[in-house]
Amino acid sequence: MVMHMSIRVAVSGASGYVGGEVLRVFSGHPDVEFGALTAHSSAGDALGAHQPHLRPLADRIIVETSADTLAGHDVVVLALPHGASAEIAAQLPPETLVIDCGADHRLADPQAWAEYYGGAHAGTWPYGMPELITPEGHQRDALPGTRRIAVPGCNVTAVTLALQPGIAAGVVDPTDIVAVLANGYSGAGKKLAPHLLASEALGAAAPYAVGGSHRHIPEIVQNLTSAGAADVRLSFTPTLVPMARGILATVTAPLAAGVNVEAVRAAWETAYADEPFVHLLPEGQWPTTAATLGANTCLMQVAVDGKAGRVVVVAAIDNLVKGTAGAALQSMNVALGLEETLGLSTIGTAP
Amino acid sequence: MVMHMSIRVAVSGASGYVGGEVLRVFSGHPDVEFGALTAHSSAGDALGAHQPHLRPLADRIIVETSADTLAGHDVVVLALPHGASAEIAAQLPPETLVIDCGADHRLADPQAWAEYYGGAHAGTWPYGMPELITPEGHQRDALPGTRRIAVPGCNVTAVTLALQPGIAAGVVDPTDIVAVLANGYSGAGKKLAPHLLASEALGAAAPYAVGGSHRHIPEIVQNLTSAGAADVRLSFTPTLVPMARGILATVTAPLAAGVNVEAVRAAWETAYADEPFVHLLPEGQWPTTAATLGANTCLMQVAVDGKAGRVVVVAAIDNLVKGTAGAALQSMNVALGLEETLGLSTIGTAP
Amino acid sequence: MVMHMSIRVAVSGASGYVGGEVLRVFSGHPDVEFGALTAHSSAGDALGAHQPHLRPLADRIIVETSADTLAGHDVVVLALPHGASAEIAAQLPPETLVIDCGADHRLADPQAWAEYYGGAHAGTWPYGMPELITPEGHQRDALPGTRRIAVPGCNVTAVTLALQPGIAAGVVDPTDIVAVLANGYSGAGKKLAPHLLASEALGAAAPYAVGGSHRHIPEIVQNLTSAGAADVRLSFTPTLVPMARGILATVTAPLAAGVNVEAVRAAWETAYADEPFVHLLPEGQWPTTAATLGANTCLMQVAVDGKAGRVVVVAAIDNLVKGTAGAALQSMNVALGLEETLGLSTIGTAP
Amino acid sequence: MVMHMSIRVAVSGASGYVGGEVLRVFSGHPDVEFGALTAHSSAGDALGAHQPHLRPLADRIIVETSADTLAGHDVVVLALPHGASAEIAAQLPPETLVIDCGADHRLADPQAWAEYYGGAHAGTWPYGMPELITPEGHQRDALPGTRRIAVPGCNVTAVTLALQPGIAAGVVDPTDIVAVLANGYSGAGKKLAPHLLASEALGAAAPYAVGGSHRHIPEIVQNLTSAGAADVRLSFTPTLVPMARGILATVTAPLAAGVNVEAVRAAWETAYADEPFVHLLPEGQWPTTAATLGANTCLMQVAVDGKAGRVVVVAAIDNLVKGTAGAALQSMNVALGLEETLGLSTIGTAP
Repeated sequence: MVMHMSIRVAVSGASGYVGGEVLRVFSGHPDVEFGALTAHSSAGDALGAHQPHLRPLADRIIVETSADTLAGHDVVVLALPHGASAEIAAQLPPETLVIDCGADHRLADPQAWAEYYGGAHAGTWPYGMPELITPEGHQRDALPGTRRIAVPGCNVTAVTLALQPGIAAGVVDPTDIVAVLANGYSGAGKKLAPHLLASEALGAAAPYAVGGSHRHIPEIVQNLTSAGAADVRLSFTPTLVPMARGILATVTAPLAAGVNVEAVRAAWETAYADEPFVHLLPEGQWPTTAATLGANTCLMQVAVDGKAGRVVVVAAIDNLVKGTAGAALQSMNVALGLEETLGLSTIGTAP
Repeated sequence: MVMHMSIRVAVSGASGYVGGEVLRVFSGHPDVEFGALTAHSSAGDALGAHQPHLRPLADRIIVETSADTLAGHDVVVLALPHGASAEIAAQLPPETLVIDCGADHRLADPQAWAEYYGGAHAGTWPYGMPELITPEGHQRDALPGTRRIAVPGCNVTAVTLALQPGIAAGVVDPTDIVAVLANGYSGAGKKLAPHLLASEALGAAAPYAVGGSHRHIPEIVQNLTSAGAADVRLSFTPTLVPMARGILATVTAPLAAGVNVEAVRAAWETAYADEPFVHLLPEGQWPTTAATLGANTCLMQVAVDGKAGRVVVVAAIDNLVKGTAGAALQSMNVALGLEETLGLSTIGTAP
Repeated sequence: MVMHMSIRVAVSGASGYVGGEVLRVFSGHPDVEFGALTAHSSAGDALGAHQPHLRPLADRIIVETSADTLAGHDVVVLALPHGASAEIAAQLPPETLVIDCGADHRLADPQAWAEYYGGAHAGTWPYGMPELITPEGHQRDALPGTRRIAVPGCNVTAVTLALQPGIAAGVVDPTDIVAVLANGYSGAGKKLAPHLLASEALGAAAPYAVGGSHRHIPEIVQNLTSAGAADVRLSFTPTLVPMARGILATVTAPLAAGVNVEAVRAAWETAYADEPFVHLLPEGQWPTTAATLGANTCLMQVAVDGKAGRVVVVAAIDNLVKGTAGAALQSMNVALGLEETLGLSTIGTAP
Repeated sequence: MVMHMSIRVAVSGASGYVGGEVLRVFSGHPDVEFGALTAHSSAGDALGAHQPHLRPLADRIIVETSADTLAGHDVVVLALPHGASAEIAAQLPPETLVIDCGADHRLADPQAWAEYYGGAHAGTWPYGMPELITPEGHQRDALPGTRRIAVPGCNVTAVTLALQPGIAAGVVDPTDIVAVLANGYSGAGKKLAPHLLASEALGAAAPYAVGGSHRHIPEIVQNLTSAGAADVRLSFTPTLVPMARGILATVTAPLAAGVNVEAVRAAWETAYADEPFVHLLPEGQWPTTAATLGANTCLMQVAVDGKAGRVVVVAAIDNLVKGTAGAALQSMNVALGLEETLGLSTIGTAP
């Protein structure tokens, strides 16, 4: 006999890209049923007008985002612009599992918040990256029973997963990390801005937030510190390239002094041998974002460049899945005491 | 108590785009388990080297395609180049359900085969388009119990589904149909040809098989005849556009004499009201291929252009899903007496 | 001895896509020098902030669009939204050559204007398509000396050039034309709209203005009538595909009664044998938009589909060049009595 | 009176991407006229069948590549696969200016050649990067009168131009450079390989030659050494992204000890103040590859990331123009004593 548990989930920001992906990914979970789908400017519309790809939900009517409409659910997923989550979250009861896909509750250090985001720090929630290496083991050990989850930033996920094995094993030097990312446009959301127009994107590559200003930097530092780094210094440059989804992160760090080259690959193999969603590819095979599209996977490869004295890791994720909605569902599973992999696909859609 | 039925499926051509998509789509079916994954030039390789997006199957070893390796399965899916299916299919036992994704067994008319494909006609198999309107009702009525299925061509599926309601209802004139398609590159397979290179594709639109030579024409004619047309004349032009997947078919036909404009939309509404995978969108909303990516859906809209005297239908599908692998699974379900929708997703991956 | 004529050109709408392309294309003209570069919301900015590809003009300051700033030039090019040209044009002196890239002055029939655009009709200017077949010969004969030019619509150019030879020669029947276009996104301008975002465009094809509502329809009808059609009926469907530039127009019309198939190709060969910018490709070679990128060319091919009883023409242009800015410069040359081809390139940028 | 000098140019490899671009770019030169257009497998074909964008040359017949067909020209441009140039070059007379777009004659160090390319080193030719900083000034000083030019690698050009000002000025430390590039597909040529297919490229980012194996590394080291570095160590990772052309290079190096932050920007400003083709953008504006498409420009921006202790430079070029064919023409001008900028455009084609 199988006891069927039903989890009633509300999604706030349902007409945006992250909200739509939360609906898509959570639809794959056998126990999830959707309650309120909320948004602001699209309230009153059928969901199908904004998310035509979600056929089973096409006739659902979007309602206004408020504490009232979000009340009475087991889980509330917030897919709102940065700064908007904290206010609404504060009005939700403590027994509701609130999963914030925004940045408001990720950073532990109020000063880092102030420096990169500005304004008051809303507080810190348990961090929704089960694979994160912590002093005690993994972040998944900290999630069971929690009713608040801060979903990591998408770039943060790619860079953290790429580098933490080397840091935990002491084979790379965290004081001179360089990360350059190729990013799909959906990471920027549905915001109307000239540089996000199709005509600008097609046939072009363009950097943004260069030189240390990107808001994901303190979050990466926080994670790599969790994984064992005493001092993290990171040069981080994202670049928009003409794809809707995907992050390809090229992350390099100096080979730590006295480390045997053989120890490098072993560090990654060991770290991820039992991870269901993070995969070191066979030697010689490099990841492509296409292989992760729609899947909750991170694919990576590592090499040692002896002449440069650097370890090079390339990691691929789907920014909307392992980078956001998949991480949300994976963390929900752990928080609710379900199998961590329940309802999550590791099969990408390619080509 | 639920009785679990296990269906053992072999896939031939497993390293190609169609084969990979069959593996992806069939993975979603609760009763399917994969037996032999076969191919020719990649035999001996791990599947992950050719299909890195199919993580759960990454370590499976591809074996040589032969009657021996394909023996002992409940279902054999053939994802082979045109002409190759017939030979291998002839060696498979009659009790095996053989699903041919290629063209070899689609056409009923040996002369049409000879004209468009050349060579000997391999014979005609039950046609794997459950929604096809037939004199007796629908093609799904003809599939239960069959052990041979010919999966339709991808362009054929888009054009047939777009237009058959109007033909069955007598609201369009089938003697002057014009269909122009925007096609993603995966429809061409993994073939190495200069015009399929990324450098040629990016930033470009290009037609092919213009002027009546495309091999999908006789199959469309066959289908629209099934739906009730006495005489079909079709101008058909596919155009390659820079996307990996998707078909957007713009199909027009003259409004039949004496037809009331209101009758037009009603024909499509009626035809697809109960179809699980074919959807007429709300008035004013036009389909985009993005909304069908990875899903077994066909989305469409219809309009009457009074000045031109034509009905215009635009239909979107994912060529590899509703156009191929999804149709294969849907037809398998019907052939085996399972729920037609079992294991098939109507949720696309967008943006 | 060569006398150097200097033509002082002002460009209004200089920060948009059409304005930028006018600057790029006119830069290739040996006699052009730029005067005022005007716009509205970007007035005061350096041009380089909006058009970083126009290096030689990067430091030019954009000034406000007004009759004052546009005064004192030999030529004023208006690259403004529809409806905005008429007002500013009315304030420019009759001796200035005003070239309107917008729609305001294209249509001869006030009723067609009212039906498709709405509002008052601003009047009709000489039409800037030198190759257009007219009862008297070609439109180029009507342009010398004019001081007002209405630049054709981009889709209009593709469809007109594709079909007019067949109409002029009487080999196609103009009463049942079907045109379906694959369009790059720049045709929509820099307008901020959700469906123009990169995330929506990448990997997707989507139709718009389906069913006879597109504003380019009456202009095509006007042109084909000029070329000799007594009665034009046109089904016209543009579709956005993931490229920044380019139009691939697939245009079909019934083979006229009693026409010999050999006469078809001859009609196109004859019509364009001496045209410097319109080229019928060698038999068997079909055009791709890539080959026209950045060039003032229209490449095409024609075939007869005997079974369908239709002539199929596929024509490719760069919507911003032959479709707009190149047509403007070509018409300027004719209006000013210069060599028609002066400063215009027929070399595309590919791949 | 102007004396018109005619330069007769042969292009070998005329049916490939580099050869086509040489024809496009050299067509803009007022003194160039084309002699033999040669290739191997396409010999006998009209050029238009392979390069439909080069209308003025469409009817030229491709001839076989040989010392005979290349004889009798003032300039011979070799656009051949690596290894093929040396053999043919050896048969050309010393008074012919031979411009090799391949790698055969770029490296001064035979051991570096052996290590990265293998086989015999063909010797070293004057290096075709006029802007390269040398101990004596610039490489342009070494080119006048030469009859052999080795055109730099495209990635090499982007990385060298990005970083050499900082090295020459001593503001960056060359012993720990990290360069990650987003690359368009045309850099790989027309080679038929599965990973270069459109279906693989569209919607995907993928690295290649990771970990220190790319053949452009020793050439970058050679250039930065020329610019003043005593010891160069470089981590170099190119990544293919879905565009036909363009390189966006993100290059970082540690801020040299004791350097004032203000000195950084000044180093780049000074280095490129007088360069006609290399431009430091205004502060705050970052380059996009779109702005360089088709132009012989390199656009860049520099920032100091104080926390990371690194200087970050992002440089954009068109790999086929400033990265290859434009550099060839620019170097030809210098070698022949012409104005360096003659016939070279700094206007890109965007959007």
